[in-house]
Amino acid sequence: MAIISLTTDFGQSDGYVGVMKGVILAIAPDAQLVDLSHEIAPQDVRQAAHVLARAMPFFPKGAIHVAIVDPGVGSVRRPILVTTASAVFVGPDNGVLTPALTDATAKTWELDRPEFWLPEVSATFHGRDLFAPVAGHLACGVSPERMASRVSDAVLLALAGPQRLPDGSIRGEVVHADRFGNLITDIPGEWLTGGSHRGHWQCYVARSVEPAPGPLRTYSDAASGAPLALVSSSGMLEIAVRDGSAQRMFGASPGAPVLVRPG
Amino acid sequence: MAIISLTTDFGQSDGYVGVMKGVILAIAPDAQLVDLSHEIAPQDVRQAAHVLARAMPFFPKGAIHVAIVDPGVGSVRRPILVTTASAVFVGPDNGVLTPALTDATAKTWELDRPEFWLPEVSATFHGRDLFAPVAGHLACGVSPERMASRVSDAVLLALAGPQRLPDGSIRGEVVHADRFGNLITDIPGEWLTGGSHRGHWQCYVARSVEPAPGPLRTYSDAASGAPLALVSSSGMLEIAVRDGSAQRMFGASPGAPVLVRPG
Amino acid sequence: MAIISLTTDFGQSDGYVGVMKGVILAIAPDAQLVDLSHEIAPQDVRQAAHVLARAMPFFPKGAIHVAIVDPGVGSVRRPILVTTASAVFVGPDNGVLTPALTDATAKTWELDRPEFWLPEVSATFHGRDLFAPVAGHLACGVSPERMASRVSDAVLLALAGPQRLPDGSIRGEVVHADRFGNLITDIPGEWLTGGSHRGHWQCYVARSVEPAPGPLRTYSDAASGAPLALVSSSGMLEIAVRDGSAQRMFGASPGAPVLVRPG
Repeated sequence: MAIISLTTDFGQSDGYVGVMKGVILAIAPDAQLVDLSHEIAPQDVRQAAHVLARAMPFFPKGAIHVAIVDPGVGSVRRPILVTTASAVFVGPDNGVLTPALTDATAKTWELDRPEFWLPEVSATFHGRDLFAPVAGHLACGVSPERMASRVSDAVLLALAGPQRLPDGSIRGEVVHADRFGNLITDIPGEWLTGGSHRGHWQCYVARSVEPAPGPLRTYSDAASGAPLALVSSSGMLEIAVRDGSAQRMFGASPGAPVLVRPG
Repeated sequence: MAIISLTTDFGQSDGYVGVMKGVILAIAPDAQLVDLSHEIAPQDVRQAAHVLARAMPFFPKGAIHVAIVDPGVGSVRRPILVTTASAVFVGPDNGVLTPALTDATAKTWELDRPEFWLPEVSATFHGRDLFAPVAGHLACGVSPERMASRVSDAVLLALAGPQRLPDGSIRGEVVHADRFGNLITDIPGEWLTGGSHRGHWQCYVARSVEPAPGPLRTYSDAASGAPLALVSSSGMLEIAVRDGSAQRMFGASPGAPVLVRPG
Repeated sequence: MAIISLTTDFGQSDGYVGVMKGVILAIAPDAQLVDLSHEIAPQDVRQAAHVLARAMPFFPKGAIHVAIVDPGVGSVRRPILVTTASAVFVGPDNGVLTPALTDATAKTWELDRPEFWLPEVSATFHGRDLFAPVAGHLACGVSPERMASRVSDAVLLALAGPQRLPDGSIRGEVVHADRFGNLITDIPGEWLTGGSHRGHWQCYVARSVEPAPGPLRTYSDAASGAPLALVSSSGMLEIAVRDGSAQRMFGASPGAPVLVRPG
């Protein structure tokens, strides 16, 4: 039974996600459908890419991931499909599939065979009319070759990425604030567990003067209300507040700068 | 494997939807359950009918649709079942099933056989005690005839519907504002693509003096921040703002008047 | 096909629930996954226990319930498993499984066999790394004996419980305010339908001087805007306002006192 994950900015009020599922199930009645998030901020391609990046390593081999954050729907942006050694991805060619495209085994395709789409394709809802049917056909075993043509120039998000500074500190940014107000950064945990950062760090977030100290192993290792830094469950530096919200304490949103100093 | 869609105003915090699913799966363990929306505004029968109307054409033949927005639960309002050539619907007899009832092939039934309900039926949660078990039995192939008796006087929502005015303009209303602030109206796209409206329109929403011009093919055809009118993915006139919210720009909610002038 | 319910405080934006489902389906591809609630207030163990308690009687025998509200994740709190005659439960040992633990047939186990977890267990996301894989293995028929060791000292929530006062009145508290603003209390309906309370009651909520009269059978039996008391669909005393919100009218949240007087 094929597993299909769905990530969109459609919300859960309007029935848009449900109608996509109706289309998929009309083609692949036995598919296992899993919602990753439909609460991506409207048109926030980067946030969807981050949610997908964190989730995809935990899905079984062969999973199909559909990611639709699509401000350019109906315009010239291409619908694409990406295969890797472990999964298949479909979505618009606007960077939302960056986590798949940067995999060493990635092959990219343009979805250009309308016979695998709904008979009528609207200009504003390709999630329903194009991507859902393609996901359904993939779940039924139709190969990418039959539905798409190879391309090699897919759009990648320009992710600045963290930097090591000459004085031994590391600069990065917040990429996600979760429901608990935990701030997930783009700084890999490994950068902090060897070399000059072995030992202790002080993490400065946004304009805050008070640093979050680390590494702690888990939230409970800090005092209630105190900030802390740890390696998150996705392997990245995370800033948290025990029994509180780092997002509120530091006034930090995605994009906020993070500076990690040894000491 | 039967497909069952669920549309309610129960929200997603309280576990009410999950318990309905538990009841369905106790009867039909293999059912495919699809959430259309559980964020219908409390007791907004009309909004639920609109979500159902937009989604039902895209579900496979034989789908079972459960719609529970039920301010009169436990009172004399009847529980009903509607069959059409393509689907089966269950819900309270308060107009929420209007999209099914107005289908030319609709047959209506009153659910009046308690042996197909839970042994104890509360006065306040027929979604769990009555409609969920009926949906489960439908998924297992029990016929409407066994669970219900034919009736012919089901409640229909009084949908005013759009009007053509003598001066060639069209009057309608907003029926839904989606998560992006797009305003979906009750004016069919076909009304605008022939006759005197072939060519260009100006759409006036609520009390706004600035019209939204149309038809555009897709959002990207307008300038950023500009209002536009197009035929939505559900085939109706839609007012949108590129990279913005028409709901905010026009201060318009469901029920707000829309006037379309040629020119 | 095993049925697995999920109750968490993870929200639905961040993809945390989706990734747990990916882990479960990698082990048990055919599992039926049902969301009870992911909108539990962050770290509100008690609210999760109430949602679970109301839902579990309606799930089929053998259902697997996963409840993760886990402020102490990564600390010394144990991961546990509880079996009853009708279901299996997994979650942290912090009281969230109280509804299972207080079942007369409950047996409690500590999950202490890492070979049934993900190869790497983070300190902050045991939902994904420990509880999801255990649920997957349970769905595949692995017995509790193989994955856990019997214990007998699991943490129970101190639920004060309702009291009968010498003057014949009953004191309890609000345990849940649902999406409609209905207030569900911890006073069982049976306490109110026999003895001195047979007949009529007046329910005083929080500091309100105006009581909600009862018992009514259903919401429609009150005048629009009027408060009422009834036995809820979960069998407990519930305070509601017809076409309104008792939560707003009485300014009452979970924990607010409720006093029921005969008369």
